[in-house]
Amino acid sequence: MTPTSTERKVRYGAARLLAPEIDELIREAPGELAEATESLHPADLAEIAEDLSAEDLVVLINHIPVERAADVIGYLGAGLLKEVLSALHPERAALVLRDMSPDERADAVAALEREFAESVLARLPKSDREETRRLLAYPRHSAGGLMTPDFVRLSPDLKAGDALDETKRVAKDVETIYTAYVADAAGKLVGVVSLRDLLTVAPDTPLREVMLTDFVSANVYTDQEEVANLISKYDLLSLPVTDAEARLLGIITVDDVVDVLVEEATEDVQKMGAVTPLDAGYFEASFWTVARSRAGWLAMIFLGELLTTPALQHYEKTIQGAVHLVLFLPLILSTGGNSGSQSATLITRALALGDVRGKDAGRVAMRELLTGFLMGAFLSLIGLGRAVWVTHRFDLAIAVGLAVISVAMAGALLGGLIPILVRRLGYDPAVVSSPAVASLLDVTGIVIYFTIATAIIRM
Amino acid sequence: MTPTSTERKVRYGAARLLAPEIDELIREAPGELAEATESLHPADLAEIAEDLSAEDLVVLINHIPVERAADVIGYLGAGLLKEVLSALHPERAALVLRDMSPDERADAVAALEREFAESVLARLPKSDREETRRLLAYPRHSAGGLMTPDFVRLSPDLKAGDALDETKRVAKDVETIYTAYVADAAGKLVGVVSLRDLLTVAPDTPLREVMLTDFVSANVYTDQEEVANLISKYDLLSLPVTDAEARLLGIITVDDVVDVLVEEATEDVQKMGAVTPLDAGYFEASFWTVARSRAGWLAMIFLGELLTTPALQHYEKTIQGAVHLVLFLPLILSTGGNSGSQSATLITRALALGDVRGKDAGRVAMRELLTGFLMGAFLSLIGLGRAVWVTHRFDLAIAVGLAVISVAMAGALLGGLIPILVRRLGYDPAVVSSPAVASLLDVTGIVIYFTIATAIIRM
Repeated sequence: MTPTSTERKVRYGAARLLAPEIDELIREAPGELAEATESLHPADLAEIAEDLSAEDLVVLINHIPVERAADVIGYLGAGLLKEVLSALHPERAALVLRDMSPDERADAVAALEREFAESVLARLPKSDREETRRLLAYPRHSAGGLMTPDFVRLSPDLKAGDALDETKRVAKDVETIYTAYVADAAGKLVGVVSLRDLLTVAPDTPLREVMLTDFVSANVYTDQEEVANLISKYDLLSLPVTDAEARLLGIITVDDVVDVLVEEATEDVQKMGAVTPLDAGYFEASFWTVARSRAGWLAMIFLGELLTTPALQHYEKTIQGAVHLVLFLPLILSTGGNSGSQSATLITRALALGDVRGKDAGRVAMRELLTGFLMGAFLSLIGLGRAVWVTHRFDLAIAVGLAVISVAMAGALLGGLIPILVRRLGYDPAVVSSPAVASLLDVTGIVIYFTIATAIIRM
Repeated sequence: MTPTSTERKVRYGAARLLAPEIDELIREAPGELAEATESLHPADLAEIAEDLSAEDLVVLINHIPVERAADVIGYLGAGLLKEVLSALHPERAALVLRDMSPDERADAVAALEREFAESVLARLPKSDREETRRLLAYPRHSAGGLMTPDFVRLSPDLKAGDALDETKRVAKDVETIYTAYVADAAGKLVGVVSLRDLLTVAPDTPLREVMLTDFVSANVYTDQEEVANLISKYDLLSLPVTDAEARLLGIITVDDVVDVLVEEATEDVQKMGAVTPLDAGYFEASFWTVARSRAGWLAMIFLGELLTTPALQHYEKTIQGAVHLVLFLPLILSTGGNSGSQSATLITRALALGDVRGKDAGRVAMRELLTGFLMGAFLSLIGLGRAVWVTHRFDLAIAVGLAVISVAMAGALLGGLIPILVRRLGYDPAVVSSPAVASLLDVTGIVIYFTIATAIIRM
C-alpha cells in the first residue's frame, strides 16, 4: 500500500520519457532492459508496457528480475495480463506468480485459460497453491475476490507493547500494518485496533482495552460495490472480511477499493450508453466482445423502435393531408428523447448515490413535470417561429409549438420515473440507457404530435 | 482517517433503525437527542440527518455536543450544509467550525453566503481564521482546495527513533501518521517516510537514510482529478502538496480522493447525459439550479436539431412521391443515433481511462466502421422484412435496408471519432453527450436515407 524503503530509488512519472528508449532496447539489446528500467516505479513501467505489442511485452517481462515482473504484471488489465502470462514458460510464469500478493495472484490465475492455469498452479509451492485455490473459490466481484489473507492478526490477550512488537515482526509480509485485527482462539474477529492507538497508549495496556469492539466488516460474499461504499462511508484504510461464523478470513485495503470505484463508474457509464459493461479496456477486449456487448442492446432498442411504424401508419391520412408536418418530426422526437435522457441520467445517478429513493417518485414527478414545462415552453416558441417561417401556416405552427412543450414534459416525466420503477422492480436503474428511454419517447412523441396536429390543423 | 480509541463506543450501520426514534425526539424531547445518538457513527448520524427537514436538522444540530455536530456536518453535502449552518446562531456556527478539520472547515465556509461567512469567521480564533482564509484562496477543485495542513512534518536531521517520538507526540492532532513528510529549514519537501519504515529500522538510523527522496507530489493548483489519478496509480495513502518553490503546504489523504472519484464519475455521467454537472444532490440542489443545468444544453441541441427541417425540405418531392418513406424515418434516425451514442460512450470512457489515446483515431475508425457494418447488416434485414410487410414495395424496402446499414456505420464512426477530436482540440470529451451525438446523426441520417431513397425508388 505504501512505499517501503526497498522502493527508495524509484522514480515517479518518468514513463513517457523512457518509452522510446525501452522500445529500442527490446529490439536491440534486451539484456540491458533490467538495468535501464530498474529506477522506474512499477506503475510507470506498467504504463509503458501497456503501449507495447504483446511480443515486445513478453521480451520485457522475460528480461527483468522476477519480482519486478510480478509488480508490473499486477498493474496490467485482465486482457493484457492473460496474453503476457500465457506467452511465458509455465516455469517462469509460476516464479512471477509466487512473487505477487495473494489477491493479485488469484486474479491473475483467474484470467488464464484453464489448462495453462493448472500447469502453473502445479509449479507453485503447496501453501501458495492452496491459498490461491481458496481465494479463487469466491466470486470475482465479491469481498472474497478482493481480499488478501496477509494482514496483522493479534490475539486479544496481548498487551499493547507486545502487539506493537508482533506488528513490527510481520511488517514486511503484510499488506498493511496500520490497522490490526484481533481474533480469538476460534478465529472469530473480536476487535480492530489502529497502529495510531497502539503507538500512543502505555505499552502495558491490555489490547482488549485499546481495540474497538464495535467495527464494520464485510461478509466474504458481499458485493464489491457494497465493500466500496463501506470503506468510503466510514473513511477506512482497510475492511475485515469474515465468513458466516464471523471468522476472520482476510482484509480489503482502500487502494483496491479505489480501483473498484473506477470500475463501477465505467460500468454505470457503459450501461447508460446502452453497452453491456466490458471487463477490459476498449482495445484490450476482443473485437467480438465489444461488438456483442453492443449488438444485443442495439437490436432490442431497434425492435422497440419498430413500433414507430404502426404509430405513424395510424396517422397516415393526417400526414398525407399536410406533408409539412413531417418537416418537424425529427425535431419534436429528439426534444422528447433528449429531455428524457437528461432526466434518466440525473435520476439514475441520484439513485446510485442515495440522493433519491423509491419513495420519492411523487416529488420527482412534480419536479420533472415543472422542469419539462419550463424548458418546453421556451423551446416551443423557437419551434413555433421556425414553423411559421418555413410553412407560412399558423395552425401547423401552433401544432408544432404545443407538441414541443408536451414532449418535453412527457420526456422529463418518463425519464424521471422509469429508473425509479426499475429500481422498485429490483433491477439496477443503470440498465435504463439513454437510448432506450429515447426510443420509448419516439413512440410517445409520434402519438402526441399527430394527435395534436389532427385536432387543430385544417386539412 | 482511521477510527481512534476515542470513537470506541461507536455503532456502525444502525442508522435506519434509529431514524423513527430520532424523528420523535426532535418533536417531543430534543433534550434527549444527545444521549440517544451518542453511540452512532457520525457517518450514520449524517445519513439520518440528510432525511430530515431543514428545521428538524437544526434542532438536532443544536442539541448534540458541538464536536459531534462538527463531525456530522462534515459528512453533509454542500447544499444541506449551507442550509444548516446558516440557520444556526453565528456564535454556535463558529464553535462547530472550530471543531472541524481545516480542510472541511474551509469547504463549509466556502458554501456559506458571504455576509454570514464573515460573521462566523470573525468569531473564530485568529489562527483558525487565517488558516481558513489561506485554504479558501485555492480553487475548490484544486489540490489546495483538498489539502489539510495537519500532518507529521519532520526535520531531515532527526534519527528514526526521534522521528517516531515526534510522530507519537503529534498523533492526536494530525490527519494521518502513517506517512510523514520531511522538510528542510526553508520548508522545502525533501523526503517522504512511511511509519512502517520508521518502526522497522534501528532507532539510531538517520532519517535521511530511511526516507524516500524520489516521491510524487502535487502542486497546490493541480486539478483534483489529477490528484486522484496520482493517488490511485501509485496506491498512496496520502499525497504531499507543494507550492511553486517546492515548499510543503499540506497533504491530501486517500479518503478525500475516494470522494473525488465518486464526484468526478457523477460529473462524467451527467455531462454525457447532456446535463451541466451539479455540485449537490438532486433534491439538495435548488429547482432552478437543476433546470438551468439542463435548459442550456437542451436549447443548444434543439438549435442544432432545427437543421433537420431544411434537410427534410430538400427531399420534399421524394417524400410527397412516397409518403410511406416517412413510416421508417424515426426507426432509421434512432438507429444512427443509438449506434453513435454507444460509440461515443465507449470512446469517451476509454479516453478518460487512458485505454484510447489521440493517436488511435485510425484504429478506432476501422474498428467502429466494422462494428457498425456488422450490427447494421443484421438490423437491416429486420428493417427490410418489416418494410416489405408494411408497404408491399420491394424498392422502398431495399432503400430502408440500405439506409439502416449506412446510418449504423455513420453513427459508429462519428460517435467514435468526435470524442477523440474534442480531446485533440483540448476539451474534455465527456462534454460530447449522447443526445448531442444523436442530434448530429439525425441530420446525417436524413441525408443518407433520402439520398438512397431518391436514387432507387420508383416514383
